[in-house]
Amino acid sequence: MRKSIATVSLSGSLTEKLSAASAAGFDGIELFENDLLASPLSPKDIRLLAEDLGLRIELYQPFRDAEALPADAFARVLRRAEQKFAVMEQLGAPMLLVCSTVSAQAVDDDLLAAEQLRTLAERASEHGVRIAYEALAWGRHVSDYRHSWRIVEAADHPSLGVCLDSFHILTLGDDPAGIREIPAEKLFFLQLADAPDLDMEPLHFSRHYRCFPGQGVFDLTGFTEHVLAAGYEGPLSLEVFNDVFRRTDAERTAVDAMRSLIVLGDAVRHRLPERVGLDPLPPVSPSQGFAFAEITVDTRSETQVRGMLAGLGFTLRGVHRTKPVQLWQQGDARLVVNRAHFNGTDRERGDAFVSVIGVETADPRSAAARADALLAPPAPRAIGAGESRLPALIAPDGSNLYFCRTAADDGWLADFAPLRDGSGAPVLDAIDHIALSPHADHYDETVLFYRAAFGLALRSNEEIASPHGLVRSRAIADDHLRLIFNVPVLLDDAAPRLQHVAFSCTDIFAAAAHLRTADVPLLPIPGNYYEDLAARTDLPASTLTTMRDHGILYDRSGEAEFFHLYTTTAGRSLFFEVVQRVGSYTGYGAPNAPIRRAAQHL
Amino acid sequence: MRKSIATVSLSGSLTEKLSAASAAGFDGIELFENDLLASPLSPKDIRLLAEDLGLRIELYQPFRDAEALPADAFARVLRRAEQKFAVMEQLGAPMLLVCSTVSAQAVDDDLLAAEQLRTLAERASEHGVRIAYEALAWGRHVSDYRHSWRIVEAADHPSLGVCLDSFHILTLGDDPAGIREIPAEKLFFLQLADAPDLDMEPLHFSRHYRCFPGQGVFDLTGFTEHVLAAGYEGPLSLEVFNDVFRRTDAERTAVDAMRSLIVLGDAVRHRLPERVGLDPLPPVSPSQGFAFAEITVDTRSETQVRGMLAGLGFTLRGVHRTKPVQLWQQGDARLVVNRAHFNGTDRERGDAFVSVIGVETADPRSAAARADALLAPPAPRAIGAGESRLPALIAPDGSNLYFCRTAADDGWLADFAPLRDGSGAPVLDAIDHIALSPHADHYDETVLFYRAAFGLALRSNEEIASPHGLVRSRAIADDHLRLIFNVPVLLDDAAPRLQHVAFSCTDIFAAAAHLRTADVPLLPIPGNYYEDLAARTDLPASTLTTMRDHGILYDRSGEAEFFHLYTTTAGRSLFFEVVQRVGSYTGYGAPNAPIRRAAQHL
Repeated sequence: MRKSIATVSLSGSLTEKLSAASAAGFDGIELFENDLLASPLSPKDIRLLAEDLGLRIELYQPFRDAEALPADAFARVLRRAEQKFAVMEQLGAPMLLVCSTVSAQAVDDDLLAAEQLRTLAERASEHGVRIAYEALAWGRHVSDYRHSWRIVEAADHPSLGVCLDSFHILTLGDDPAGIREIPAEKLFFLQLADAPDLDMEPLHFSRHYRCFPGQGVFDLTGFTEHVLAAGYEGPLSLEVFNDVFRRTDAERTAVDAMRSLIVLGDAVRHRLPERVGLDPLPPVSPSQGFAFAEITVDTRSETQVRGMLAGLGFTLRGVHRTKPVQLWQQGDARLVVNRAHFNGTDRERGDAFVSVIGVETADPRSAAARADALLAPPAPRAIGAGESRLPALIAPDGSNLYFCRTAADDGWLADFAPLRDGSGAPVLDAIDHIALSPHADHYDETVLFYRAAFGLALRSNEEIASPHGLVRSRAIADDHLRLIFNVPVLLDDAAPRLQHVAFSCTDIFAAAAHLRTADVPLLPIPGNYYEDLAARTDLPASTLTTMRDHGILYDRSGEAEFFHLYTTTAGRSLFFEVVQRVGSYTGYGAPNAPIRRAAQHL
Repeated sequence: MRKSIATVSLSGSLTEKLSAASAAGFDGIELFENDLLASPLSPKDIRLLAEDLGLRIELYQPFRDAEALPADAFARVLRRAEQKFAVMEQLGAPMLLVCSTVSAQAVDDDLLAAEQLRTLAERASEHGVRIAYEALAWGRHVSDYRHSWRIVEAADHPSLGVCLDSFHILTLGDDPAGIREIPAEKLFFLQLADAPDLDMEPLHFSRHYRCFPGQGVFDLTGFTEHVLAAGYEGPLSLEVFNDVFRRTDAERTAVDAMRSLIVLGDAVRHRLPERVGLDPLPPVSPSQGFAFAEITVDTRSETQVRGMLAGLGFTLRGVHRTKPVQLWQQGDARLVVNRAHFNGTDRERGDAFVSVIGVETADPRSAAARADALLAPPAPRAIGAGESRLPALIAPDGSNLYFCRTAADDGWLADFAPLRDGSGAPVLDAIDHIALSPHADHYDETVLFYRAAFGLALRSNEEIASPHGLVRSRAIADDHLRLIFNVPVLLDDAAPRLQHVAFSCTDIFAAAAHLRTADVPLLPIPGNYYEDLAARTDLPASTLTTMRDHGILYDRSGEAEFFHLYTTTAGRSLFFEVVQRVGSYTGYGAPNAPIRRAAQHL
């Protein structure tokens, strides 16, 4: 099926918008009227530009307040429409979007609306133009799609059909199943947008908060399934008004948009296997957890990070045969420490950060093929002779993803010259989760990519108070791979972009005692926290005393419990967490996050 | 009356919050529980710190889900409450805020709620603590203030009263007049917050969008009048959850908060002249428009700006006797051009910007006294012997405000050595309006300050699409002084912070012809704009042709019309506008702003 995007979803000039849509692989666009009016190009030049870029102008939009009007007002509508039809002929645009009226002049009279839309469609047909009538959620008299279809049906003109917009239908909580009852030849256009879990007045919601399919909470898969099952043959077109997309780099937004359509198309294809024109994605190769995390340090932060790892119970197990890279391990937890120079990057000297996530999977090639199909570019790597050739790609947050089968004959561990085995029992077992901080402008894109690449589910979506402002925190996970993405609710380039790696253990009290002996700097937790804990839990006083001594935090969900502690921060950005999950606890101690962030602020 | 602020309204650590509240002149605070839990200070140390800073801890908050519970759950509540009462004794906090329950365990039983609140109040009284019961707008069974009062009345305990929160009451559209029926001794606490004109689910709205009184659309003056008329004697306390305040400098936010209480107190005092404890502001001295605007240039932008001014019909009328400053004039429009160095400032070399707004008023001293009472600091100025001593202060956006009586004997014009009179009739008449771009973090603060300082009304509040993202644009004005404040809807430090000065004229076609002859670089407006204008207006074809030739834009409101054109940008930030108002047009051509911004982007 053709893929289209509305120019209003992208930033910049019209030329920049069209170039970005073309570069991301779209077949067509919806041309937003203000983008035409503000362009120095004539309609004919825009047509030529679009043709050069391989883009159809699928739709010209919007035309407002056209129907159910007194005769004199409708006469002015026709005059205005004639000019639009003439422009559309020059543009080569075959379809005009007419939104249900919001005019105070309009009357609640379906027959009049149908009659005037029929007249409009007849005039349009003289220019080779068709009219797609859309019910706005905030339309004055027509706000749901069944109503718009009844009017289109009554008008009964071959150049008049309906435009369906997922946002308008789903924001009203309407059931899209009725779409299947509309004849295929009357389904003229399909606009797709998702939205987050907010409850607000539809117009403001629509203008600011729409997002690409898969980035919000609407069931776009089910919605699109209904439309395609009804026989719709036009493009899948994204019409997303979003404060971030309006501002950020159009080329990047267009790639994000295309990825969301790829994920959506694949999901719908599973529901409608007989439907042609939907491209499959390579299947998810289930991960078996983290093979490793790579931490990049510079000469200034290296000592600090190595000291922390040793104190946490890690052993230096190997040195890379050709690079300044070390392998540290205990139990199934592996960390690769990579020394680099930060000159010419946006990293401050002395910082440390998670640079690579090694994902353990039975089929690294297939997993990488899926990430590649999700438009992740390959990671540039210098691979020495005889070294493992792990498939590696760059995720939208800038992290590199390496796909690993650690136990394989050609496993990546062989790239490291072995030093020694670990001595004694491990303190920590494995990497429990990794928390990253993508830039605010790439947040939704990043979360969608990771979810789609690994088949992870959204497990939580919280707002956390911090001394620097509110932080949004989303956790995505399956049974093996757990990732958290944090971002300031308000863009704040000055706020630290904290990251952390959390390790699991089976006895956090023993682990804490070990860390204390090893002089690992732990984040101090205020005594007031424990006074409150004593008042609201049944934890024994002796347990609370030990927790207070070690800065161990606590959360509870039913009978399941969670104990966790934090190191101080290495460099500006990186810290470590130790967690113990008791019972079926699946969270991350979110209620304690404000306490942790306040302690980090001090 | 005492003035208080909730610690949750300020960013940073508890110590930083208390210091900021004290520095801004608050008498007290509401201590938010999480600020206590996250503080390394003991309750006793917090008490000592607050005492040192001259702050009362007026309220400890919130205590949730206390009432209408099964017996075992209420037993746990009492256990939890006992610990809070003990902490409050150490804090010296006399009052606990109890919010109406949102617990799924709670039953809809006012008698049970009253009985349990009475028990809680009795326990509290043993610690010298009182309970203020507040109806949350999203409370499970109790969501309006009358209902909370009925329960408090039924409980009938001297240590139990109501807390009134303007946000919860006004967001539900409730009538606050009923507050007058609550006995004064039962009005335990008053929390004040305003909110913008958005329609969304109250909990999300409350947590993100509250603002200080006067910065939103609620009638806080009327609300506060009801509460004070009922005999409330406690503090006026601000409880504002706002994404910006949570993040930005606490000291600045506290000053902004104090200013809003000063403005509110003055407004209420006018309604309740007999009420003691409300301090008056110096009265508004009505402005008579703009005396001048000062534009600061550097050696690189000076030539460009001077060339534009000459082309716009301005004449160099004088040179400052002691500074590198020129006076340009035509008609009643005066511009002062000030050459400075941008080294060490955040201005790029070659930029130009509005640095001073000279306000014409019959009583400069009185006008300045009001701005001073609104916490504008004095502007540091080097004043030479014999030069005019205009009162000068710094507005929150960084602009300097000079208060002028131009025709006075000691008028500021005498600071300039006269050069020559203007030749011929002026092209432009006066400064019509000035548009500024405060930083997003200071936007609401800036608009409130200018409104209060000059007694201006909010005339429009628009969101304008631009190639860099949405821009919020608010116009405030009286009959003489018109100011526009623009800001990106999403913080964007990279976006240009455009400013402009608009001049009025009586014949924009003549003015445009003059500008064309004088080679003033005008912003080109696309032909597509005029095609659309032809289709939706009755402007004659010949008029449209002239408008297209000169880039004149058009807006209409009823019978009133607006014609305007723009120069290109001088430096990175500054441009000029020429406007002609026909009839009673009071706007600024906002529908054309996206066209203008797109043209500027090209």
